[in-house]
Amino acid sequence: MMQNEPLARADLEALDARDALAPLRERFALPEGILYLDGNSLGALPKATAARVQEVIEEEWGKDLIKGWRERGWMALPFRVGEKIARLVGAGPGQVVAIDTTSINLFKLLAGALRLKPGRKTILSEAGNFPSDLYIAEGLTELLDSGYRLRLVEKHEIVGAIDGDVAVVSLTHVDFKTAEIHDMAALTARAQAKGALMLWDLCHSAGAVEVALDRCRADLAVGCGYKFLNGGPGAPAFLYVARRLQEALKQPLTGWLGHADPFAFEPHYRPAPGIARTVCSTPSVLALAALECGIDLMLAADFAALSAKSTALTELFIRLVQERCGTFGFTLASPREAVRRASQVSLRHRDGYAIVQALIARGVIGDFRAPDYMRFGLAPLYLRYVDIWDAVEHLRAVMAEGAWRRAEFQTRAAVT
Amino acid sequence: MMQNEPLARADLEALDARDALAPLRERFALPEGILYLDGNSLGALPKATAARVQEVIEEEWGKDLIKGWRERGWMALPFRVGEKIARLVGAGPGQVVAIDTTSINLFKLLAGALRLKPGRKTILSEAGNFPSDLYIAEGLTELLDSGYRLRLVEKHEIVGAIDGDVAVVSLTHVDFKTAEIHDMAALTARAQAKGALMLWDLCHSAGAVEVALDRCRADLAVGCGYKFLNGGPGAPAFLYVARRLQEALKQPLTGWLGHADPFAFEPHYRPAPGIARTVCSTPSVLALAALECGIDLMLAADFAALSAKSTALTELFIRLVQERCGTFGFTLASPREAVRRASQVSLRHRDGYAIVQALIARGVIGDFRAPDYMRFGLAPLYLRYVDIWDAVEHLRAVMAEGAWRRAEFQTRAAVT
Repeated sequence: MMQNEPLARADLEALDARDALAPLRERFALPEGILYLDGNSLGALPKATAARVQEVIEEEWGKDLIKGWRERGWMALPFRVGEKIARLVGAGPGQVVAIDTTSINLFKLLAGALRLKPGRKTILSEAGNFPSDLYIAEGLTELLDSGYRLRLVEKHEIVGAIDGDVAVVSLTHVDFKTAEIHDMAALTARAQAKGALMLWDLCHSAGAVEVALDRCRADLAVGCGYKFLNGGPGAPAFLYVARRLQEALKQPLTGWLGHADPFAFEPHYRPAPGIARTVCSTPSVLALAALECGIDLMLAADFAALSAKSTALTELFIRLVQERCGTFGFTLASPREAVRRASQVSLRHRDGYAIVQALIARGVIGDFRAPDYMRFGLAPLYLRYVDIWDAVEHLRAVMAEGAWRRAEFQTRAAVT
Repeated sequence: MMQNEPLARADLEALDARDALAPLRERFALPEGILYLDGNSLGALPKATAARVQEVIEEEWGKDLIKGWRERGWMALPFRVGEKIARLVGAGPGQVVAIDTTSINLFKLLAGALRLKPGRKTILSEAGNFPSDLYIAEGLTELLDSGYRLRLVEKHEIVGAIDGDVAVVSLTHVDFKTAEIHDMAALTARAQAKGALMLWDLCHSAGAVEVALDRCRADLAVGCGYKFLNGGPGAPAFLYVARRLQEALKQPLTGWLGHADPFAFEPHYRPAPGIARTVCSTPSVLALAALECGIDLMLAADFAALSAKSTALTELFIRLVQERCGTFGFTLASPREAVRRASQVSLRHRDGYAIVQALIARGVIGDFRAPDYMRFGLAPLYLRYVDIWDAVEHLRAVMAEGAWRRAEFQTRAAVT
């Protein structure tokens, strides 16, 4: 498309026509009449998922019953799915497992990190980190007492705040409000140069932007399965522990399935070798089977192409908002520079909440985060270029018609 | 049936013919040619589950996407399912939530218990408790350091060991090896009389025997969804906190969904009122939907009738083993007295492992626990009286024909 002339919808139809990723959209069950720009909160449904979960229920559980744990590979499921996620986050084998939830995995790894750095008492994070990550760190330091603390600084203060008391720097790679990407390689190196460990939350990264955990020499990571990995509502999460740290890692949720020999029923806990010690207890087979379908679909795509399309979609959204909604008072909250921005565009507007409601009423699903962030997740696996055009046209119509003022009134009435 | 004459199969057919619970068996998808006596490890598949999970995937997730959290009641699911479980464990409303795994819930509640009893440093349990429960207590006390310890005693020593240093007594209500039931009311009273809290693991109780948490004035409880509740492999677990303790309880897995106002994204954790503070993060909607089907099926039964049938089935199994397998060297490991025995019969035999393998080869699915326990779970919801007869006949045939010696040889060859 031409950068200097205003775009037309036909330009985007042309882009879709030659998009090598376009056939993947057909493998999602997307509802009619909806422009779904909230894949950063809950990914869309792969068509394969229902049949696969059905098979697990009727053929595996129903017919094999208890034998399923060994004969249907249920025991290995957290590791099998983990290895597939590993390929999406730049991790070599034996370092990723799919299990539990992001917050629970964060608790395991933060506790493990503090014990790997005895004498250091600080978990360092940023004030704008996803609140659950901060709450978990708070919960852990309060439980431990004896001087442990969570220290919060602003984004630009992080590097300077890594002092000799910091055991672990805990950051979310992609900011949930703005989609700004932290420089993983640089921050990891800075943390390690000061003797601290580096933990990355990849909730808004995995399946959305290129992640290179091994190459960046990251120490620890967690992430979720229900956003860009399309694993379904409340899908299992994952965690990563760099191989060099695994044998020394002591995580405190020492359930039997992280034991070196679970069925020996030994009287004392003895951690399994390697990444298996981060497993606590019985994984949900149904939930992992659904997650695997989402990941398989993502692995079917060329990730470089996916990443390029993600950039193109967000770039397009920003450009169209500028061209077609320039007079409505939106501020771009996401970085303008594509390399610093993930698969999401956030706009700020004083009336953002009502505008998002008005868009939803028109079938354009984005979301809102206080105080004034409108978030639009642009999942490159199942969105078309024309979808971006149409979404911005809806935004323009909402603003031009003042529809959001009526929506605001109706929503406030409905909520009370 | 007549107690003094040997039983015949026809006697049991007669019992099945007048069993008021018999129609419930038709609501399970049981595989042909299998006698499934392992519902104490993994419950059978309710016929309703596949269609319900399909509906959640295709109609709720697929069509409503992110709106499902509010409009399909996903947010409320841990509480809705929790309230149903509450009815099975004798708990009034607002005290049970279905979430996470048994071991993770145990960690939350043990940590919470220690903080409710400052100055007391001991978690007291029994050496024969399910190993994962012991490992979790070990993991917690090691994390806390500063004098906290897990003390293990034998079953008959428990009462005497509750001293002024015990913060919480942590026991499994039904012994996983022998199906022996602890006296919940008496032990709870003894623990509380000594100033300790009482925590019950109900993994082998819920849906199998009568449990009266409120009436026994229990403080805390956990339990799993995949055994007698028929929730599916790795189904979500549950936890119970007595209402009187809830506002003071501080559990350390302080994720955002246990926050008083999750979507306000406040900078600090502030626990939700009541039982909601025990939730950590996003629950698996698919797994909870499957669990709910299992619980609904159990709630369709009259629980007194279920409990009576459970007693009758275990009594019958023991009697038939005595009558028909009396010469083969089995020892009854479960209590002979029905009131002290849950929905499981355990036999001990020097060659138990090989005998269980030979039974499995004949389609009789029980399981084995070291060193010599053969476990037979007798779920009253879907087993018939004739199934018990047939299972014991298979056992008799295995022993009489020496089939287990061949099975032992084959199994050992296959394992290496």
